[in-house]
Amino acid sequence: MRVTAFAGGVGGAKLIDGLAACLPPEDLTIIVNTGDDFNFLNLHISPDVDTICYTLAGISNPETGWGVINESWNALTNIKFLGGPDWFRIGDTDFGTHIERTRRLHNGETLSQITEQFCHAWGVKNVVLPMSNDPVSTITKTIDFGDLPFQDYFVRLKCDPVLKAIEFKGIYDAMPAPGVLEAISQAEVVIICPSNPWVSIDPIISINGILPNLIKKPAIAISPIIHGQAIKGPAAKMFTELGIEPSALAVADHYKEFINAFVLDREDLDLENDIGKLGITPFTTNTRMVSNESRVQLAKDVLNFCERIID
Amino acid sequence: MRVTAFAGGVGGAKLIDGLAACLPPEDLTIIVNTGDDFNFLNLHISPDVDTICYTLAGISNPETGWGVINESWNALTNIKFLGGPDWFRIGDTDFGTHIERTRRLHNGETLSQITEQFCHAWGVKNVVLPMSNDPVSTITKTIDFGDLPFQDYFVRLKCDPVLKAIEFKGIYDAMPAPGVLEAISQAEVVIICPSNPWVSIDPIISINGILPNLIKKPAIAISPIIHGQAIKGPAAKMFTELGIEPSALAVADHYKEFINAFVLDREDLDLENDIGKLGITPFTTNTRMVSNESRVQLAKDVLNFCERIID
Repeated sequence: MRVTAFAGGVGGAKLIDGLAACLPPEDLTIIVNTGDDFNFLNLHISPDVDTICYTLAGISNPETGWGVINESWNALTNIKFLGGPDWFRIGDTDFGTHIERTRRLHNGETLSQITEQFCHAWGVKNVVLPMSNDPVSTITKTIDFGDLPFQDYFVRLKCDPVLKAIEFKGIYDAMPAPGVLEAISQAEVVIICPSNPWVSIDPIISINGILPNLIKKPAIAISPIIHGQAIKGPAAKMFTELGIEPSALAVADHYKEFINAFVLDREDLDLENDIGKLGITPFTTNTRMVSNESRVQLAKDVLNFCERIID
Repeated sequence: MRVTAFAGGVGGAKLIDGLAACLPPEDLTIIVNTGDDFNFLNLHISPDVDTICYTLAGISNPETGWGVINESWNALTNIKFLGGPDWFRIGDTDFGTHIERTRRLHNGETLSQITEQFCHAWGVKNVVLPMSNDPVSTITKTIDFGDLPFQDYFVRLKCDPVLKAIEFKGIYDAMPAPGVLEAISQAEVVIICPSNPWVSIDPIISINGILPNLIKKPAIAISPIIHGQAIKGPAAKMFTELGIEPSALAVADHYKEFINAFVLDREDLDLENDIGKLGITPFTTNTRMVSNESRVQLAKDVLNFCERIID
């Protein structure tokens, strides 16, 4: 089964890791959010692309989900010592990735070319596609802190500011990166990973041409919210502050325009009926990925559900 | 005695280290060559400024003379792994310096402001002044490789290409950094460190306004060449390729316009007479700095010679 998956950062990377263990690499293409990309210390950081790639390369830090395992921190320690900003945590190996990516971007290479070459170096066999090579910046519009670039909101301010709205700056001019529309067209099913709907999946969906291609395809989403709580990150808080009670149902409703099926956790079994009423097929399983084994088990379950919606 | 010293990289840093051990910090100001500065991996590298500052901060690598002690190399290892250039060796802590400097330059701070702030952080009590905040690039014009930026010649090609000439690109537009002319005017004596005359000292001398101020002052140079050989680096090879037999005498001759005295090694005792004929007072001592003790001893000797030329 040819699968194209949409993914953001840590939560998405866990399911991607499971799917990669279940599918031959040529059958799994990943389209990754770049709305979180930002400039830090004059370096172009692509947090979600790196998290997905490090995970597939088997070098991600299992404790944090982001960054590289067995990191040293000498560059950032020195930067802090010299009075520079250190709120975005970059280890020394990770700095190498950002420095080399930034160098290539300055030389005129595109983010998708660079990602392909980095994946080749890391031995990642799957195709990993940034959603766009054009700049898109997720801006969190907050009550007390005004407009904040996403990483300022997410990392520097620890998601503390109260959200009013989210905006994807540059989205109307951003074209899908080469291969993105083809990856959707050629997929038998599109899997929306359990990433943050507002800031990881919405930017991908909002890129020119993606939604019209996506709605032609069977698509299944996995809830990032269990029992009204986000497994990780600010998704539930965002739903609340944007005036929606956070739940798996709210996520399914958010995606209803383009998904055929929705995977929710056993703890949310009571929501199956309401999800069905949205015209979406609900599937229930254990969606908490607390170990490598549970990543693979959820991937297997999701692929089984996919078989059922394709048939 | 108020001293202002002109210095390049590793050789200069050793004498600076000795002088700093002998003089109260307010009596030793260092003017540092920035002609070697270059862009590597989109970072602004100031090799000589860093070598001087790391040395004064007591964190330089004693084995290489450049870079930081106890370095890790994870960023550069990753950059190489990803296919990037690694011929200029930057350790992780050192990367922090370059990243933070580059960030501040992009924010509009000057190299001299940044150097002052970094020195403050490192606990360096001496004033360290880059010769200029304007871009000056030492270009080595070679027979087989054409025009090479200095670090390409020096580090990447290991000084292998045959020199035709040396050019300081930007020198006519470069103004002395704030404090440089004052440091010369206020000095009782100027010490020209045993740095490479062609690529470390000449750029400083060539900056607008420096020579007219320098010739008003007692000045003493220490030979970087002993017995026709450079202690370190390509100085002797440069003399030969530029048509001059390398020797302490050739260095004294090169500087004769602005020095009153010249320190040569005991091995070159036979050159004293010829140096005297140039109108320069020769002083002879052991100039090889093979240990911390010998750095301090040479500094003491040089300061004694200074007393004698000031009187």
